[in-house]
Amino acid sequence: MRLRHKPGAADQVKENAHYVIPNPSEQKGKWNEVFQNDQPIHIEVGTGRGRFMVGMAKANPHINYIGIEKYTSVISDALDKLIEAEVPNLKLLNVDAQKLTDFFEDGEIDRVYLNFSDPWPKVRHEKRRLTYKTFLNMYQQILKNDGEIHFKTDNQDLFEFSIMSMANYGMTMHFLSLDLHNSDFEGNIMTEYEEKFSSKGNRIYRVEAAYRN
Amino acid sequence: MRLRHKPGAADQVKENAHYVIPNPSEQKGKWNEVFQNDQPIHIEVGTGRGRFMVGMAKANPHINYIGIEKYTSVISDALDKLIEAEVPNLKLLNVDAQKLTDFFEDGEIDRVYLNFSDPWPKVRHEKRRLTYKTFLNMYQQILKNDGEIHFKTDNQDLFEFSIMSMANYGMTMHFLSLDLHNSDFEGNIMTEYEEKFSSKGNRIYRVEAAYRN
Ligand SMILES: C[S@@+](CC[C@H](N)C(=O)[O-])C[C@H]1O[C@@H](n2cnc3c(N)ncnc32)[C@H](O)[C@@H]1O
Ligand SMILES: C[S@@+](CC[C@H](N)C(=O)[O-])C[C@H]1O[C@@H](n2cnc3c(N)ncnc32)[C@H](O)[C@@H]1O
Repeated sequence: MRLRHKPGAADQVKENAHYVIPNPSEQKGKWNEVFQNDQPIHIEVGTGRGRFMVGMAKANPHINYIGIEKYTSVISDALDKLIEAEVPNLKLLNVDAQKLTDFFEDGEIDRVYLNFSDPWPKVRHEKRRLTYKTFLNMYQQILKNDGEIHFKTDNQDLFEFSIMSMANYGMTMHFLSLDLHNSDFEGNIMTEYEEKFSSKGNRIYRVEAAYRN
Repeated sequence: MRLRHKPGAADQVKENAHYVIPNPSEQKGKWNEVFQNDQPIHIEVGTGRGRFMVGMAKANPHINYIGIEKYTSVISDALDKLIEAEVPNLKLLNVDAQKLTDFFEDGEIDRVYLNFSDPWPKVRHEKRRLTYKTFLNMYQQILKNDGEIHFKTDNQDLFEFSIMSMANYGMTMHFLSLDLHNSDFEGNIMTEYEEKFSSKGNRIYRVEAAYRN
């Protein structure tokens, strides 16, 4: 994610505390109270500028969404979209996803989305990839038993790594496409990165995986 | 595999009983005696016209190879190559691989190669795909505990199916390429189908998988 300074981003985030939830660890185990309903909760780790989360929240009002993005200047763009869309079923967290278990109780989450996650191409950085086994373990903790991970990317190396990592962790897979935009998958909502890289002709890879109980 | 009538194929196979082993179930558990050494044994299921097996046998004299092909007119072409190459570490079986456990003892085999296996695109035929769970189970039986399956194909649907099938069977993966010919994999030996389809511009997919003990 190329960062730029966005003046006023921090203030805007603070002023919209009903959208960008401050101190999320205080809501641990109580997210259904935040949304004031009992709908399933799907989170996206590394939301970026929010196109996917806002699109999903509009398309699926019976699901609650939480978008997690560590950079304030980036999440501020997602916040702009959310203010514009005015959907009640999407919240944002301006935090580092390495601490997911501080924010969510065991089994509180129904699905984790990972979209175009940072590739960290160097082998010595593989632990930072969001599909490294320690992350898979963290998602397993906060997910319900039948919870799922939905991952898409155009990065071939990251996808190869992720499929192996998931298989080696013992996960099952019930959807796999090596060319999403030429598959019969319906209702795809594009992310900012997906728009950009698919228009350059890159293939999009996608997998849905689950944990063995 | 497009079949053509090859006059004399059946006779040629019969006359070369030291290369195309007749009644292979009689050798069950005794393949190291057939090769007269204790080298590891790698088999290919669906050998076709033999280019891969002959190439591997030449490149790796310390490994014994067995190529399995059900059609006599097809294996006859592999036999031509083997007679020409005169390698002692390759045998052929003109049998149906659905009966692998009739021919090999539990744990007798070190590796199974599957190359450009028939895709069986219709869902009602999925049980015939050589990576369907019943086949994975059969390979597991004849393989040593640390035995591996090496699979390559240009067929996107079959590869997607196979990755899911292997993950869902609980297999681990330690090599995965979604574009073999543009990867840093070394020493690739092309099959007849690989030559044909890669020259048309198709990507080649490849995975190495193992069983969890
Ligand atoms: C390559 S961008 C993709 C953004 C968006 N998902 C898309 O597809 O357009 C990755 C995003 O993940 C964020 N990110 C990476 N690691 C993170 C972490 N540990 N916690 C929160 N956000 C993270 C980055 O700041 C960046 O905005
Ligand atoms: C598509 S061709 C590929 C041949 C070769 N592996 C290559 O890559 O060029 C598949 C081959 O597998 C053989 N085959 C398919 N099912 C088989 C089975 N159950 N037992 C033995 N051979 C089989 C077919 O006869 C055919 O020759």
